[in-house]
Amino acid sequence: MKKVEHIGIAVRDLAVSIPLFEALLDTQCYKTEAVDTEKVTTAFFKKGETKIELLQGQEPDSVITRFIEKKGEGMHHIAFEVADIHAEMKRLADAGFTLLSDRPKPGADNKLICFLHPKDTHSMLIELCMEKP
Amino acid sequence: MKKVEHIGIAVRDLAVSIPLFEALLDTQCYKTEAVDTEKVTTAFFKKGETKIELLQGQEPDSVITRFIEKKGEGMHHIAFEVADIHAEMKRLADAGFTLLSDRPKPGADNKLICFLHPKDTHSMLIELCMEKP
Repeated sequence: MKKVEHIGIAVRDLAVSIPLFEALLDTQCYKTEAVDTEKVTTAFFKKGETKIELLQGQEPDSVITRFIEKKGEGMHHIAFEVADIHAEMKRLADAGFTLLSDRPKPGADNKLICFLHPKDTHSMLIELCMEKP
Repeated sequence: MKKVEHIGIAVRDLAVSIPLFEALLDTQCYKTEAVDTEKVTTAFFKKGETKIELLQGQEPDSVITRFIEKKGEGMHHIAFEVADIHAEMKRLADAGFTLLSDRPKPGADNKLICFLHPKDTHSMLIELCMEKP
C-alpha cells in the first residue's frame, strides 16, 4: 500500500454536496464521472496526493443509496493505492483479511479495485486500487 | 487546506489494533503517544504523505471511549493540514461552518488543532491541524 488514494463519501445529492465540499476544502470539484456498473455518480476534489470522492447513488438499489438509507450520508470508504493489486490481494488474504471479490473490478477514475470485508477492519470499508495497466 | 494529514480511527485496545493495522497497511507503527489532556493514547502509521492515527481512550469518560460505546470501533475523524489555522478557522466560520472551539487546542504529534461540527459535514468529524510554530 503506497498512499491514501482517495476517501469516499456517500451523499444524497451532488448538487448540494459539491458546493459544500468546495467551501469546506477551498478547492473546486475537477471532475464528475458516472460509474454505471455500480449505479453511482462520483465527483472528485484533490488535496495534496489524496482525492475526496463524493458518491451519489443513481437508483434506489444502488449500494450507495442503500448505505445512506441505513447509516445516513458521510464516510463510506478509504482507498489505498497499491503497486500490484493482485499481489496485494494475495498478501492480505494470506494475512487473514477477507476480500469482497476474487478478482479486481473496474472502478471510477480508470482504476482496478477490490474491497476488504469491514468485519476485519473495525467496520471500515477499505478499498485497494491501482491505475488500469 | 493542504492535504489529508491523518485519518483518526477509534479502537478499544491498541495491543490488538496495532498488529492488525501493521498487517493491513504493510508497515510498522512508528510512534505511540499519550495525549493526557484528551485522555487518549495514539499510535501512528505512515502511508505516503498521510498518517493513520489509532486512538484508544485512557478512561471511561474519554471522548474516544464514549464514541466506541455509541458507534463501535472505526473511523473517527479526518484531519486536514492547514498553513494558518487561525485564518482557516475564520474562512470556514465565515462560510457557515461551526467550529467546536474558539481557539486552536494542542493535539498529538506537536499540532495545534480545531474540529468542525459534524452537523455541517454529513456527520463526518473534520479536524484542522497545523504544526506548532
